[in-house]
Amino acid sequence: MTGPPADLVPRLDLYRERVRAALDARLPPASREPTRLHEAMRYAVLGGGKRVRATLVYAAGETVEAPAPRLDPPACAVELVHAYSLVHDDLPAMDDDDLRRGRPTCHRAFDEATALLAGDALQTLAFECLATPSPGLPTDQRLAMVQTLAQASGSLGMAGGQAQDLAAVGHVLDLAGLERMHRLKTGALIRASVRLGALTGEDLATRALEDLDGYARCIGLAFQIQDDILDVEGETEAIGKTRGSDAARNKPTFPSLLGLEESKRRARDLHAEALEHLDGFGPSADTLRWISAFIVSRAS
Amino acid sequence: MTGPPADLVPRLDLYRERVRAALDARLPPASREPTRLHEAMRYAVLGGGKRVRATLVYAAGETVEAPAPRLDPPACAVELVHAYSLVHDDLPAMDDDDLRRGRPTCHRAFDEATALLAGDALQTLAFECLATPSPGLPTDQRLAMVQTLAQASGSLGMAGGQAQDLAAVGHVLDLAGLERMHRLKTGALIRASVRLGALTGEDLATRALEDLDGYARCIGLAFQIQDDILDVEGETEAIGKTRGSDAARNKPTFPSLLGLEESKRRARDLHAEALEHLDGFGPSADTLRWISAFIVSRAS
Repeated sequence: MTGPPADLVPRLDLYRERVRAALDARLPPASREPTRLHEAMRYAVLGGGKRVRATLVYAAGETVEAPAPRLDPPACAVELVHAYSLVHDDLPAMDDDDLRRGRPTCHRAFDEATALLAGDALQTLAFECLATPSPGLPTDQRLAMVQTLAQASGSLGMAGGQAQDLAAVGHVLDLAGLERMHRLKTGALIRASVRLGALTGEDLATRALEDLDGYARCIGLAFQIQDDILDVEGETEAIGKTRGSDAARNKPTFPSLLGLEESKRRARDLHAEALEHLDGFGPSADTLRWISAFIVSRAS
Repeated sequence: MTGPPADLVPRLDLYRERVRAALDARLPPASREPTRLHEAMRYAVLGGGKRVRATLVYAAGETVEAPAPRLDPPACAVELVHAYSLVHDDLPAMDDDDLRRGRPTCHRAFDEATALLAGDALQTLAFECLATPSPGLPTDQRLAMVQTLAQASGSLGMAGGQAQDLAAVGHVLDLAGLERMHRLKTGALIRASVRLGALTGEDLATRALEDLDGYARCIGLAFQIQDDILDVEGETEAIGKTRGSDAARNKPTFPSLLGLEESKRRARDLHAEALEHLDGFGPSADTLRWISAFIVSRAS
């Protein structure tokens, strides 16, 4: 692989547009009561973003040859959980951020109470997406998806990672502690995204599922390292939030513990390791391979 | 029915103790990392409460002769959703309450960020309870429960009612508007509790499900009217929060719109209507009948 295949960028764009349309259809219209809540939910979800988690669902679905419509519910569900976590994370009680994806954060555009409720209702909608009958997705697969998403999002997953992150501010955290925190905070939902896509396949071998999970663990951590690198090196405009905001908050980061160059090397190593996990797959895993490359080379 | 059967009070106590033990088993131990988050989750859930929603699940289960162990997952799920909503509702951005069930609210006992995350993780755990395999609960029933709970909790249910409640502070709200708000804010989860219990039965007739739903709609509203009455008449110690706090906040209430006596008459009428909906049921609905009586006569 010397460069992405010509159809990769359009394919990722297609997936992004696909999940945006699916989310748009599943979110109640802004005209429906309570209108302010629905406006805030739509603002938080439809305002852009890289849709990394949704594209991982679709790309993992490619490896098991699942038709795209079957992947819409889990793709929406992971984006809804991600969006809810950002809305709550930005609140004054947490990170107190004013800017997200280059726009005012949800509580700045609306108000704190509305943002709190919008986050709550987005989480609920994620589970509703998976529970609502959908063509081609049998009951047992959908229930397994609810379980996977819940385990990845709760106190032993994403929310637990956020709690560890809070506890770490102003404290000394070693590399192992930082990795442990990020494996939950961002890693758990990224792993779940790959697993949810893979779950739509029939008769997937346990070994293949483990390989995909190994891939997902690597890119989850690489994603966070690249985030930390961009917080040091990126342009505020491109990353959509204030540069250096993590460092200013005295949050431990990979560059602060490892240095910038060593952090970049670590991200590249994780990318290579991610690709190794896909050795047993043919061209059906090419999109996953190129998402991994995108994760460590992205500028925003 | 001239008085509750001798075994009713012990039976309700049994259900309360049953759901408490089931919740205790499903909540991660406080010793598990992140410990502060797990402590806060346990504090918010295991600190008492009337467990009205859980007892409704068990009592609705009686009408379809479901064994109690089959009812533990939905009983836990409704209590977890209720607990999460109270934790978030008490936050400074919402009601800013210091006292709940006679103890400091979660964010006062811990901190705002921890309370926010604890509420988030409790909602997740509610769905995980329903998705985790459980003896006697087939996959399709559990998935239907996820859907029912999600619809009742989201922006067109409980969270939507809270948004309407926020929008109503300081505004003129007529009786129809107040009822509409409460049918979502507290009513939706109470209806879901009865429905979840009924869903554990096999081959329940549509008519029976509709009757149970009619019952649940009546007691849901009666519950809220009695809450408003207690806010005027109750003792701070008994109701576990500051008396008159709704009135002080300029929130519209049933007594403020109807007067106290008319509010009491309305609660009694709803109780009578709730019982009528159960006319087609025999003694298997006696616990539901007495829960209705308890709701309009309770002092806390």
